[in-house]
Amino acid sequence: MPNPTAAILVIGDEILSGRTREGNAHFLAQELARVGVDLREIRVVPDDHAAIVAAVNALRAGHDHLFTSGGIGPTHDDITADAVAAAFGAAIGVRDDARALMAAHYDKRGVEFNESRMRMARIPDGADLIDNPVSIAPGFTIGNVHVMAGVPQVFQAMVASVLPRITGGRPLLSQSLRVMRPEGEVAGRLGELAAAHPGVSMGSYPFVQDGAYGTNLVVRGPEAEAVSAAMTALADAFGGPA
Amino acid sequence: MPNPTAAILVIGDEILSGRTREGNAHFLAQELARVGVDLREIRVVPDDHAAIVAAVNALRAGHDHLFTSGGIGPTHDDITADAVAAAFGAAIGVRDDARALMAAHYDKRGVEFNESRMRMARIPDGADLIDNPVSIAPGFTIGNVHVMAGVPQVFQAMVASVLPRITGGRPLLSQSLRVMRPEGEVAGRLGELAAAHPGVSMGSYPFVQDGAYGTNLVVRGPEAEAVSAAMTALADAFGGPA
Repeated sequence: MPNPTAAILVIGDEILSGRTREGNAHFLAQELARVGVDLREIRVVPDDHAAIVAAVNALRAGHDHLFTSGGIGPTHDDITADAVAAAFGAAIGVRDDARALMAAHYDKRGVEFNESRMRMARIPDGADLIDNPVSIAPGFTIGNVHVMAGVPQVFQAMVASVLPRITGGRPLLSQSLRVMRPEGEVAGRLGELAAAHPGVSMGSYPFVQDGAYGTNLVVRGPEAEAVSAAMTALADAFGGPA
Repeated sequence: MPNPTAAILVIGDEILSGRTREGNAHFLAQELARVGVDLREIRVVPDDHAAIVAAVNALRAGHDHLFTSGGIGPTHDDITADAVAAAFGAAIGVRDDARALMAAHYDKRGVEFNESRMRMARIPDGADLIDNPVSIAPGFTIGNVHVMAGVPQVFQAMVASVLPRITGGRPLLSQSLRVMRPEGEVAGRLGELAAAHPGVSMGSYPFVQDGAYGTNLVVRGPEAEAVSAAMTALADAFGGPA
């Protein structure tokens, strides 16, 4: 059975303006590889209702899971929850269980549960809450879409909450070989070896170090034996231990 | 006149597998903001012909410019040039001027110009070359699509070559204010101020530092006076110097 597929949608003007370097997608990419979910696409769109709705509908249709990051805080530019509800044609309003969680949290800390914070209890009808042990205001899952916060600490906590719910496939295994030769010199033989090992994918990633050109060769696949056999062939061809 | 718009398409399994943290899009996002081009979307897709063709056609239709990163090296998994040609319905083959540039470069360095490296001289018909002072093998521009390498040093050199060709609009200016109060406390007043300053956008970016919650407030807009006026209003409301 093929692994389940996924896409990530990052929502935020701060990424597109260059102010912030996105890191949540990289974190989740690593987690998904670990549990055997094939990440097929990442998109970043602005804090714009129509753009979010269009991206949610395109990506949830094409993949088994869609994970979103950003836009579920208390401010006027946090419009993700409403946009996801619109994408599903679902109603949205303050939900009692989310409000109760947050009220207890703020009460214990002596923090006012004001109107802005109440926005974070707005959840589309039919959604399940995603636990947020860091700052309590929850994410949610509706259909195959998992809506999470953009603050990295909170995003990571929500990923930890939601991933165990997802039935993954076989984790993607990888081995890499660092070769101090330019990519153009290994490309020919690498292509032959890739063709000879159809059970794995072989990638090559050139780098420059101290003015010298090198290449990282990476073998990926779900079967440990096939990955090891391919790496042995690479090491034989290009020297050096794997 | 509104600023020109752009999208970035990053091509590479290594990003989606979590092996590599993408940085080229972040670099280019900063450069585009500087020259007044509005970046509206970033996508990451795998080294897959159909996925690249579909993304190129979707993004070149929706934006004034599309910049791509990755997949134009010498190895079997470098399929971007062919996919972009297919997206345009253009023929592709080794081009004499690209080959001559590379032959001279390799000759001077005593490096063999082999069949793998010759792949990098394959350019779609009708494209203009993008200069690559780092490793010579060129990128290319076809229509409104600018195709560049994924190696960061080369990508950045190609961006420097191609950006002066692009007629930008007014650069996006920004000012930020760091407030040691949680986002939920500033959200209400921030929303009012955002409504009162329609010539700028106001964003809020929560952070956690030493266990305390704070918020970075960012004002963005093309007009310096409007940005400054909005920042003054924020500083008055939330204290502290801008």
